[in-house]
Amino acid sequence: MISAGATLRSLRARKPLVHQITNYVVMNETANATLALGALPVMAHAVEEVEEMAGIASALVINIGTLSKHWIEAMLLAGETATARRIPIVLDPVGAGATAYRTETAKRILDAVDVTVLRGNAGEVATLVGAAAEVRGVESMSTGMNPADLSREAARRLGLIASVTGPVDHVSDGERVLAVANGDPLLATVTGTGCMSSALTGCFLAGKPEEPLEAAAEALAAFGVASEMAAAGAEGPGTFHARLYDALYALDPETLDGRTRIG
Amino acid sequence: MISAGATLRSLRARKPLVHQITNYVVMNETANATLALGALPVMAHAVEEVEEMAGIASALVINIGTLSKHWIEAMLLAGETATARRIPIVLDPVGAGATAYRTETAKRILDAVDVTVLRGNAGEVATLVGAAAEVRGVESMSTGMNPADLSREAARRLGLIASVTGPVDHVSDGERVLAVANGDPLLATVTGTGCMSSALTGCFLAGKPEEPLEAAAEALAAFGVASEMAAAGAEGPGTFHARLYDALYALDPETLDGRTRIG
Amino acid sequence: MISAGATLRSLRARKPLVHQITNYVVMNETANATLALGALPVMAHAVEEVEEMAGIASALVINIGTLSKHWIEAMLLAGETATARRIPIVLDPVGAGATAYRTETAKRILDAVDVTVLRGNAGEVATLVGAAAEVRGVESMSTGMNPADLSREAARRLGLIASVTGPVDHVSDGERVLAVANGDPLLATVTGTGCMSSALTGCFLAGKPEEPLEAAAEALAAFGVASEMAAAGAEGPGTFHARLYDALYALDPETLDGRTRIG
Repeated sequence: MISAGATLRSLRARKPLVHQITNYVVMNETANATLALGALPVMAHAVEEVEEMAGIASALVINIGTLSKHWIEAMLLAGETATARRIPIVLDPVGAGATAYRTETAKRILDAVDVTVLRGNAGEVATLVGAAAEVRGVESMSTGMNPADLSREAARRLGLIASVTGPVDHVSDGERVLAVANGDPLLATVTGTGCMSSALTGCFLAGKPEEPLEAAAEALAAFGVASEMAAAGAEGPGTFHARLYDALYALDPETLDGRTRIG
Repeated sequence: MISAGATLRSLRARKPLVHQITNYVVMNETANATLALGALPVMAHAVEEVEEMAGIASALVINIGTLSKHWIEAMLLAGETATARRIPIVLDPVGAGATAYRTETAKRILDAVDVTVLRGNAGEVATLVGAAAEVRGVESMSTGMNPADLSREAARRLGLIASVTGPVDHVSDGERVLAVANGDPLLATVTGTGCMSSALTGCFLAGKPEEPLEAAAEALAAFGVASEMAAAGAEGPGTFHARLYDALYALDPETLDGRTRIG
Repeated sequence: MISAGATLRSLRARKPLVHQITNYVVMNETANATLALGALPVMAHAVEEVEEMAGIASALVINIGTLSKHWIEAMLLAGETATARRIPIVLDPVGAGATAYRTETAKRILDAVDVTVLRGNAGEVATLVGAAAEVRGVESMSTGMNPADLSREAARRLGLIASVTGPVDHVSDGERVLAVANGDPLLATVTGTGCMSSALTGCFLAGKPEEPLEAAAEALAAFGVASEMAAAGAEGPGTFHARLYDALYALDPETLDGRTRIG
């Protein structure tokens, strides 16, 4: 059953620890989004400790936005621990399709780790299912498939929940496709909002691990509603960004359910 | 003598260079807090340059929030230089108690470096003195000792100033315990505010190196007063965060002394 | 011909990809400034992918603010690719003069890479031309030359455009010197504003690669005008910082040309 409000209430009560191995650009942002929502972020990337940290976490978020060798090793180690413990795992394949290194690393993680939700833009997800895609830097320019079909196809081929974000988001388990129509155009003017949506997906999965399709869609709805609230009164990307944390913190389960647009 | 205002005036006049080897999540934040207060931050972590940088700094802040091998080497090298030069050194043992790697690294630094002030939450500090503690990620869940006793005990056993932050902060040199009652609950909703308090401790130590107990307590009072000012008018964690730098920058020595609650 | 507004219009139409290898402290900030202005930032630093990323970018920005061995290798590799492709390259020699490691790395990059614009403060640039300079951490304290002469001299000796920022900025190709008088004192209270001006220089160069002297001066005028707009209504460094992105995003070509003070 879909209720972003109920899952939010549940995760705030549990205050799950969400282990994030993410990129340098957005670490502060995803930590603050996690904290504002009501979960506990922890950032740890050393091969010496990621297994122990993933061993006490309720969810793991892997984001390949700024890669290097030792970080990939840590992602795989943490991913193996999380897989063994059957906790939810989110993969954000930032820039897959832009360079071979990113595409191959995303594929390597998908092979070795039991990813619960793949959260990316259309170009990144299309790249990973071998469909036509143009990715410039970390931005999706075009794909050969419409996003609803893309999410269903990616879910089927990769055996996971595919969460494809864009003007309207599409989340699929290979059978059903949920379309999430919340959000504000200002999200595209701030770097790392995609990464934040991946972090919040980890939080919602920790709040409702038994229904990952619904939880993944609810996370995007919650982030979208918060962005709508933040945009009201913002004067541009900078004040919007600050107000986004205010809105995540103030997010009220009833208001959230009333504004959720999942179809 | 305790006067956060007088120390603030002194450090603004000296504009001390505060060398920080800190974690990826909060680098921007601790640099901006240092700068807003009136000191000069510099971030440098390469083994090739940390000795030279610590060699021109007025204080060193070591924070283990996102560790890896080469960073630990750099922390030890910079710490040895700072020890030899007898400049104040702050250690922030982020996440000690959460993983063995963090606990052992904090202990290794305490062994090799003449740490002036250990600034952490109750769980981290309790871990380092071998007391019962529960640390989840980077958050202290519970400890077996009350914070005043913990700070005194840590100071005695480790031979330094222990600065244990929480709803009320406790700073001790092993004999006296100063309780600092400034602050606002919004501090707990923004990641890195503990790290900022460590950076500001470094600034205040550089402003009054001859009285480290007082300086450490004053730093927390100044940060607490700034947070109280920032909270007035904030709409949540994001706007509070932005206003925190405004408040540190606007902090007036007289107002600060008038609002300081150190008992 | 100088028209920051026309170049801004051109770069917003092209939406150039600006590859940035920059420091940990300001990555989020330079990415957001790039995005708010209307270009596309991408951060990538792995030796495994920098050549491919620089191979699709319209400009490369190298910033040595937090160095280590593998990052220097990546800077050189990306720089060689950008040199071969003749795309504009900006070097920000953060902290040159503060440690030998930074000074030598900046020189090594200048030797190996065809840098289009060197953007730094007076102390950093003076260090790189062998003139007297005092650099404390990453702040310029004093130099033996006035900034107009320094920019001309640096441009001549190093064979590039020298962009020396300060209360008034000076940009020279070795013959002409353009003085840019836009800006607000609050810029000096936020960390990374120098790095942001380097990133925006990369954007403007991508918008007008055929006139690098003019483009470099226009970038500083645009950033200066945005800072003037952001300062009106700011309550200190934190709200100024948030409003800076609002202002960059709202920057209107006509208003910009009307307020540009390049002499």
